[in-house]
Amino acid sequence: MKQYIEANRDRFFDELFSLLRIPSVSSLESHRPDMQRCAVRLAELLKEAGADTADVYPTQGHPVVFGQKTIDPSFGTVLVYGHYDVQPVDPVELWHSDPFEPEIRDGAIYARGANDDKGQLFMHVKAFEYLVRTGGLRHNVKFIFEGEEEIGSPSLAAWAEEHKDLLKADIILVSDTTMISEQVPSINCGMRGLAYLEIKVTGPDKDLHSGHYGGAVANPANVLCDIISSLIDKDGHITVSGFYDDVVELSDEDRAKLGRAPFDLEEYKKFLNIKEVKGEKGYTTLERTGIRPCLDVNGIWSGYTGEGAKTVLPSEAHAKISMRLVPNQDSEKIAGLFEKHIYDIAPDYVKVEVTRHHGGNGFLIPISSHAYQAASRAMGEVYGIEPVPSRGGGSIPILADLQKILGIDPLLMGFGLERDTIHSPNESYLLSQLFKGMESIALFYKYY
Amino acid sequence: MKQYIEANRDRFFDELFSLLRIPSVSSLESHRPDMQRCAVRLAELLKEAGADTADVYPTQGHPVVFGQKTIDPSFGTVLVYGHYDVQPVDPVELWHSDPFEPEIRDGAIYARGANDDKGQLFMHVKAFEYLVRTGGLRHNVKFIFEGEEEIGSPSLAAWAEEHKDLLKADIILVSDTTMISEQVPSINCGMRGLAYLEIKVTGPDKDLHSGHYGGAVANPANVLCDIISSLIDKDGHITVSGFYDDVVELSDEDRAKLGRAPFDLEEYKKFLNIKEVKGEKGYTTLERTGIRPCLDVNGIWSGYTGEGAKTVLPSEAHAKISMRLVPNQDSEKIAGLFEKHIYDIAPDYVKVEVTRHHGGNGFLIPISSHAYQAASRAMGEVYGIEPVPSRGGGSIPILADLQKILGIDPLLMGFGLERDTIHSPNESYLLSQLFKGMESIALFYKYY
Repeated sequence: MKQYIEANRDRFFDELFSLLRIPSVSSLESHRPDMQRCAVRLAELLKEAGADTADVYPTQGHPVVFGQKTIDPSFGTVLVYGHYDVQPVDPVELWHSDPFEPEIRDGAIYARGANDDKGQLFMHVKAFEYLVRTGGLRHNVKFIFEGEEEIGSPSLAAWAEEHKDLLKADIILVSDTTMISEQVPSINCGMRGLAYLEIKVTGPDKDLHSGHYGGAVANPANVLCDIISSLIDKDGHITVSGFYDDVVELSDEDRAKLGRAPFDLEEYKKFLNIKEVKGEKGYTTLERTGIRPCLDVNGIWSGYTGEGAKTVLPSEAHAKISMRLVPNQDSEKIAGLFEKHIYDIAPDYVKVEVTRHHGGNGFLIPISSHAYQAASRAMGEVYGIEPVPSRGGGSIPILADLQKILGIDPLLMGFGLERDTIHSPNESYLLSQLFKGMESIALFYKYY
Repeated sequence: MKQYIEANRDRFFDELFSLLRIPSVSSLESHRPDMQRCAVRLAELLKEAGADTADVYPTQGHPVVFGQKTIDPSFGTVLVYGHYDVQPVDPVELWHSDPFEPEIRDGAIYARGANDDKGQLFMHVKAFEYLVRTGGLRHNVKFIFEGEEEIGSPSLAAWAEEHKDLLKADIILVSDTTMISEQVPSINCGMRGLAYLEIKVTGPDKDLHSGHYGGAVANPANVLCDIISSLIDKDGHITVSGFYDDVVELSDEDRAKLGRAPFDLEEYKKFLNIKEVKGEKGYTTLERTGIRPCLDVNGIWSGYTGEGAKTVLPSEAHAKISMRLVPNQDSEKIAGLFEKHIYDIAPDYVKVEVTRHHGGNGFLIPISSHAYQAASRAMGEVYGIEPVPSRGGGSIPILADLQKILGIDPLLMGFGLERDTIHSPNESYLLSQLFKGMESIALFYKYY
């Protein structure tokens, strides 16, 4: 489809940018109207690309976009999943260009969502368009794009249950992940799950003068630090009681297979600008992000955080904490264990409350599957080298749910790169990856 | 001066409110013009009250207001110290009325600075006015009001050095502290010092997707929690190497004297709405805030602190940390020990930076001194009970400096109450304390 891309390049940019310009931040209530606008625009693009139908479906949360083209009921059916919502943009002052005014610099598109996931789902729409217009389409194709992936897809599972028949397919095809590097394509055959919670520690019922009370009254910020510090031991093990009960230890053989993925620790450290990596004792960096669970503070705040100094003993301290889970760990169960553990260790001189944000389970797809093999062959042709099977550290909890509800496996052909810094300022997506992605997807349909 | 207060009550409120309406927040650069306005207004009030001269002096920071009335060089001279700057007002949403639009509710004035220190310094101006107009003044009086107390008085010490002769006096009289309760007047005969620093922990040079990197890269927020948690051991002792070297252990006799101060632990806990107090093992609550040093997190922030959830592994984590010091502990030395300790324990997988905010030393004044005795007699008459000598937990670092520079003792006649919640939302000052304070101060001049 190289020539097709060349011929339509400018139109492709116009269409993708029209999506990127809509600030569809799902976690912020104020952006609700943008979610609707973005969904409507996506449906338009699907129809223009050749879908028979493409509609915006309301949910309890943000709308779902569903479109499809049926060629012959007897043909195989591919269900493409993607999400049009994006992460917040703060700290916005660190962006070199407006997050919602896409800009092409040094061969990459810079914008919130350029990769995650507007840029990646767009590849599927265009590969589909190409196959339709060149008469090369040999599958029925369905598209489901949600607007709540970044907040844990609270509505899609229920919607999928209701529309099971509509979603009938043979494979769920997804581009919402990264590959190891431009030179080393990889296909994601497993993802970690997620349990995301928030802790609130309350001491005195008002902020106090730290001079008058300091030393005699428990400081909720200090207490919160004690609690968080106690959650990971010196070997990098999570101390939450029962946390590892369902974790499956991989066989040496499987570890060796995953170990095939080329990895340059020095490059990795250089990219992150860190002196040393840190993680669970006894595991490599790739294993720590691929096959092992972890716990991270995603946000913490208390007291005076402004300019200068304020001698205050704060009344409250807050932290957002998430745990990445491996397949077979249940998100709900872990959230429960976390809550219980925090309440068990909470000292009686403060009040501690734990609330749940979103979560989801991890999953695995067999390397031997027809879909995996087709993807491997397609990407191999485009990149000139056989892709490496990898394990993704991130979570797409909804995929585990769809897998359960629809009884079909998800296949993760991700074309993002580390350099894209998704979820961070200056998110970007390389044009070369955008176009190679389209080619790989078009070839996938050929070999699947 | 009861009658005088009655006769001038409304004018007193107009004058005090004109000060309280000026948002003189010294820590925020944007308020610089307000500092100047507030200083000018104070000088006006001093002249109207009867000062021969009252002028606004520029400094490297916010201006100093100095005014005086000389009756007879052979008479004793009282130097009144106060500060017209106030703390920031956030979290502003917790205020029940505009912090800078004073309101009288249930017999108290509600406004930022109502007590600390505009309300308390105002008592001195009015007691002075009364003595002048009724011909009862038998001392030369000097007033020095600074605009940088809440940020550690960075400029006043240098200014005082330059104007030593101008500031010549026999006693420094200050109302910027609390008394034990309305029923139990107390005179502060010692204050803790302060060392205030900020820690910045940097991990990767950009925010990362916690799914892709979580488990393999040190999270600066987790690391900061580890560092903070390690600073206080399970017995409430501060672990900073050398921290206690200069702390003087009080004799059992002195501890007993201070123990005379009536204190109801249940009342205390009820006022703060806490189940238990917490502090250094082996000391009472009053000792923990009076004669023992402590360490508190005044602010901490990192990562995503907004609505909802963001799966980010933050690049930076920050904390404002202050230590309250006891007399004989040197603020500069402690700040140095803290810096060294933090750098010593900083792990090599993150970058740690420590910066200093303000600090100051504590001090003591002998109970046997003529000034203390005069204050004791004056307050005893107004409150109908002999004041208790107490130790203040807060810091007025500049007083230790002035004591050193001018060679005279500060006497702390404070009329604030716990209920005033200074430095917090809804700061207030009881009218009864405002007026009893004026009476006590007028009587102090009579007995001094």
